[in-house]
Amino acid sequence: MQIRTDLAMESRHLAENIQGVNCKTIRHGAIEETHVIIESDEAAEALSKAKGTYITLSCEGMWQADVAERSALMHALSSVLKGLLPPFGDILIIGLGNRHITADALGSRVLEGILVTRHMKNVISDSIQGRLRGVCAVAPGVLGITGIETAEMVKGVVEHTRPAALIAIDALAAREANRICTTIQVTDTGILPGSGVGNHRLGITRETMGIPVIAIGVPMVVYASVIARDGLSMLLDDMGMDQEAHEPAIEALVKKISARELGDMVVTPREVDVLVGRVASIIAEGLNMALQPRLSEEEISLLTHDSM
Amino acid sequence: MQIRTDLAMESRHLAENIQGVNCKTIRHGAIEETHVIIESDEAAEALSKAKGTYITLSCEGMWQADVAERSALMHALSSVLKGLLPPFGDILIIGLGNRHITADALGSRVLEGILVTRHMKNVISDSIQGRLRGVCAVAPGVLGITGIETAEMVKGVVEHTRPAALIAIDALAAREANRICTTIQVTDTGILPGSGVGNHRLGITRETMGIPVIAIGVPMVVYASVIARDGLSMLLDDMGMDQEAHEPAIEALVKKISARELGDMVVTPREVDVLVGRVASIIAEGLNMALQPRLSEEEISLLTHDSM
Amino acid sequence: MQIRTDLAMESRHLAENIQGVNCKTIRHGAIEETHVIIESDEAAEALSKAKGTYITLSCEGMWQADVAERSALMHALSSVLKGLLPPFGDILIIGLGNRHITADALGSRVLEGILVTRHMKNVISDSIQGRLRGVCAVAPGVLGITGIETAEMVKGVVEHTRPAALIAIDALAAREANRICTTIQVTDTGILPGSGVGNHRLGITRETMGIPVIAIGVPMVVYASVIARDGLSMLLDDMGMDQEAHEPAIEALVKKISARELGDMVVTPREVDVLVGRVASIIAEGLNMALQPRLSEEEISLLTHDSM
Amino acid sequence: MQIRTDLAMESRHLAENIQGVNCKTIRHGAIEETHVIIESDEAAEALSKAKGTYITLSCEGMWQADVAERSALMHALSSVLKGLLPPFGDILIIGLGNRHITADALGSRVLEGILVTRHMKNVISDSIQGRLRGVCAVAPGVLGITGIETAEMVKGVVEHTRPAALIAIDALAAREANRICTTIQVTDTGILPGSGVGNHRLGITRETMGIPVIAIGVPMVVYASVIARDGLSMLLDDMGMDQEAHEPAIEALVKKISARELGDMVVTPREVDVLVGRVASIIAEGLNMALQPRLSEEEISLLTHDSM
Repeated sequence: MQIRTDLAMESRHLAENIQGVNCKTIRHGAIEETHVIIESDEAAEALSKAKGTYITLSCEGMWQADVAERSALMHALSSVLKGLLPPFGDILIIGLGNRHITADALGSRVLEGILVTRHMKNVISDSIQGRLRGVCAVAPGVLGITGIETAEMVKGVVEHTRPAALIAIDALAAREANRICTTIQVTDTGILPGSGVGNHRLGITRETMGIPVIAIGVPMVVYASVIARDGLSMLLDDMGMDQEAHEPAIEALVKKISARELGDMVVTPREVDVLVGRVASIIAEGLNMALQPRLSEEEISLLTHDSM
Repeated sequence: MQIRTDLAMESRHLAENIQGVNCKTIRHGAIEETHVIIESDEAAEALSKAKGTYITLSCEGMWQADVAERSALMHALSSVLKGLLPPFGDILIIGLGNRHITADALGSRVLEGILVTRHMKNVISDSIQGRLRGVCAVAPGVLGITGIETAEMVKGVVEHTRPAALIAIDALAAREANRICTTIQVTDTGILPGSGVGNHRLGITRETMGIPVIAIGVPMVVYASVIARDGLSMLLDDMGMDQEAHEPAIEALVKKISARELGDMVVTPREVDVLVGRVASIIAEGLNMALQPRLSEEEISLLTHDSM
Repeated sequence: MQIRTDLAMESRHLAENIQGVNCKTIRHGAIEETHVIIESDEAAEALSKAKGTYITLSCEGMWQADVAERSALMHALSSVLKGLLPPFGDILIIGLGNRHITADALGSRVLEGILVTRHMKNVISDSIQGRLRGVCAVAPGVLGITGIETAEMVKGVVEHTRPAALIAIDALAAREANRICTTIQVTDTGILPGSGVGNHRLGITRETMGIPVIAIGVPMVVYASVIARDGLSMLLDDMGMDQEAHEPAIEALVKKISARELGDMVVTPREVDVLVGRVASIIAEGLNMALQPRLSEEEISLLTHDSM
Repeated sequence: MQIRTDLAMESRHLAENIQGVNCKTIRHGAIEETHVIIESDEAAEALSKAKGTYITLSCEGMWQADVAERSALMHALSSVLKGLLPPFGDILIIGLGNRHITADALGSRVLEGILVTRHMKNVISDSIQGRLRGVCAVAPGVLGITGIETAEMVKGVVEHTRPAALIAIDALAAREANRICTTIQVTDTGILPGSGVGNHRLGITRETMGIPVIAIGVPMVVYASVIARDGLSMLLDDMGMDQEAHEPAIEALVKKISARELGDMVVTPREVDVLVGRVASIIAEGLNMALQPRLSEEEISLLTHDSM
């Protein structure tokens, strides 16, 4: 049985034994930075992940980070992004998900803090203008609310704004509850069909968009059936029973529990509404830093407020 | 191990074998109405619930009820409430919980639809005035945001407004996920310490307030550790193993899982933000009907909008 | 001096004496329906309005209409729209404006009540499916927040969804404060540059989009300088002085007042936040009726909730 | 005719010629600090203001202040407050107004940024605990929504929490549009009947509450009739006509305009929704500084987030 996770790093234990996967972990202070690079098609299939680079920044209690940790996280994110972005050209930021559903609102919440500049060329002082990279930002909504496939709408925006690259932000589903709001994943594979809390139907990738697509995601939920499954595995383990022998029984049972009552239920922190706002502001500030390396933090902060 | 649930009806299977508990279930259409009356101190202790009457209205898919079902639910709720309310005097409605946290926002969401009339005595037409019952409504906030115990604040309002009874609305924790947003519990026991999604520290009861206290609640979450525990029980059952013999092992395991990663995690429908709004409007309309029996539904609707 | 108004009917007194303009007013109950048809280029220039049909529905106290008036308004709006819509093909609804600024949020508020169906073709029962018109809906945001011209973004959506017509909803500026939230204007001229509370820079019209564009608007503000100017005219009138002789003095004074302190100030009802929600729901329901003539009101209501 | 303003400093020109009024103005950088002290009953009556001290901090473009100006404003506010607060004892902060109406939402918006500590005594580290002043905070809502007089509800909270002083925050009406969101008034007179955007019916003062009451207010609107009146005065002035001789004509005219269409209309910046958030955060941070002089700014910031 495939356990769904949108985090490549959660397949690491598996990945380490597969050819065509490179993993490494760096620790700086409270932040753990993990790189998983999937290089071969075989590895991609084995892990059910697209070929490409997946970088995660993890920090226990990210949402309650103090000033120094927040700053370290923003700089780490900025630095990861700089490594993936093209050096020149406008950038389009897409905030995915449904802003009316907290667990799916990360994308639109991040957009609230982005310094949008593409339209500023004629309205700000010369001294700043020469140092601005063009940034535009769109929250395309979700299929159930717009009646339009997200990828289809994004494609229309790309064709009209002609950016050099696209950054898509999305809420993810993880396998372990302690990843929720503590891990940021950045990948150059874009958004894949079936991923995210909202389960995208079409991909937003370099292939479909014709430009590089970087995806930034943070786990917001674990599907309740995953928790049930993990509990069962631990129990068997604890009882000294053989996992593999009981695999079919476990699967059948999880299916029964899921069908009976867990359906679309998710596990999430009770106060997820508050957490998502804090994580969103860390991501927005990290993005602003990466996209506007020639502005000071104060200039970014002032312009971001003015442009609202 | 005590499994937490705020719903008396979830202890029914247990209750049926205890002296001093009366249970009955009535079915009208899609709605199941259950009465659990705890009459003796022994029964109260056995069930970890206060003595008193607990009435639940359940309806699968309550949040997507069609017009006829919605109407049936509102009338059923209104009828239950009329049986518990004093015949005369002002009523104070308290919306408990934290409106910034979706799973805990039921109380404040219900208040948005309540027809508040206590201040209208001199401002509306004579024809309506003679038919109005005085209603006031307060969302006292939560301790973490106000710095004041909810019960302490409510007590101050009661002393200044001198209502004949108090109705408190709160989000509950259930034991089974399929109760979430499908069951409304009404009880004359008030709000007990330790209950609700927000875990009240002091009670709001007839004893502390000096007037009858009716509590209306709807399950919004199941604690994730409960789901894990249920999964384990089912597994043992399935494997033909004896539950009781393994009880200590299960308990130890659930504690381990909870400590490791489930902590304050809850299981909730992904789209709980949308569901809570729909259930809140059913409760608000049922309350308005019960409190203003001499107004037509249209008069209630018009006055509710005007008073905003 | 040009006094800005987005309502063609406020130019009626002027229009009545111009060749190439047809005006008529029908009254049904509390609703006044006005038609202004601008037929010649000369008339269009004299009135600073595009050639086309402008229909307004006015109802004093629209936001506090009772059930019968609300229903009459929704039916009147539906009937006006049916006269302008093409008989077949998908419809794209665009909610213009900035949802973070109350006076400019009408467009996004209306979208919240629209029954979106374009994506439902495979997910609902056959019995309903055959009777659905395809509707999709987008809130493109504003230039200051997205960095992208609204018209440019809408063009991208039109190209990818290929609707038969587009309906754009926008908050308007009026000349008289008593028009605020009491008048709905429907026009086949689309959205013109410089119109709306948000002052669109590019038009969204049949010419730019390649399909019919119907605009629905409601006045939400009067620019404060307009109020000042009207006061001055009344004063001169009252004092028996000749308006025309003092025209230059008045203009100079209004400019002085505006520059000194009125700048971008608007006149608006104190409780505009509440009013906009009520007017938006009338428009959304009128639109749903016009777009889904083969569904009953209850079917529309149920599907609208389910699709959220 | 009495022109309504809640700002004492707008009566200054008048005040300067009245015995029993002391005025002074200090300028520090971009901030103008004005003190108006009304000492005699005669002066109070002449100015229609209660006896007491009124201090205003004005800063053009306060809502777009840069980091240095923001910091200067917060320190200036903190310093003014320290001069008025009792040295020891808990402080109760009341956020007045209707949070659903932007122009009246200042009070509840400020509360979102307040560090509430009264309940923390047992939950935080010893090192911080000894340095905390007890603060609690309540948004009592408005009469139309609760059915309870604000003053009545506040009185109940005061009796149960026994603070040493009360700070009430409210949105004000000014006489001049350029005061909107650019001036903070602090006064030891409390909240007077008839003041504020919401027009309080009963006062919240030392007399009614039994403890010192400090009021903090920011103008959010000018009544539209005031703008009309000012325009007329300027016109007469411009035309070289005698104001006093025409006073009755002006008054009659303003009444006519107001009755005909201005009613409850207010003049406000189009983007007031955004401005109120920025001003609220300046006030919240200034309050936190004044109330917690023994905490660093970073400690305040961390604790404020944690307590949400």
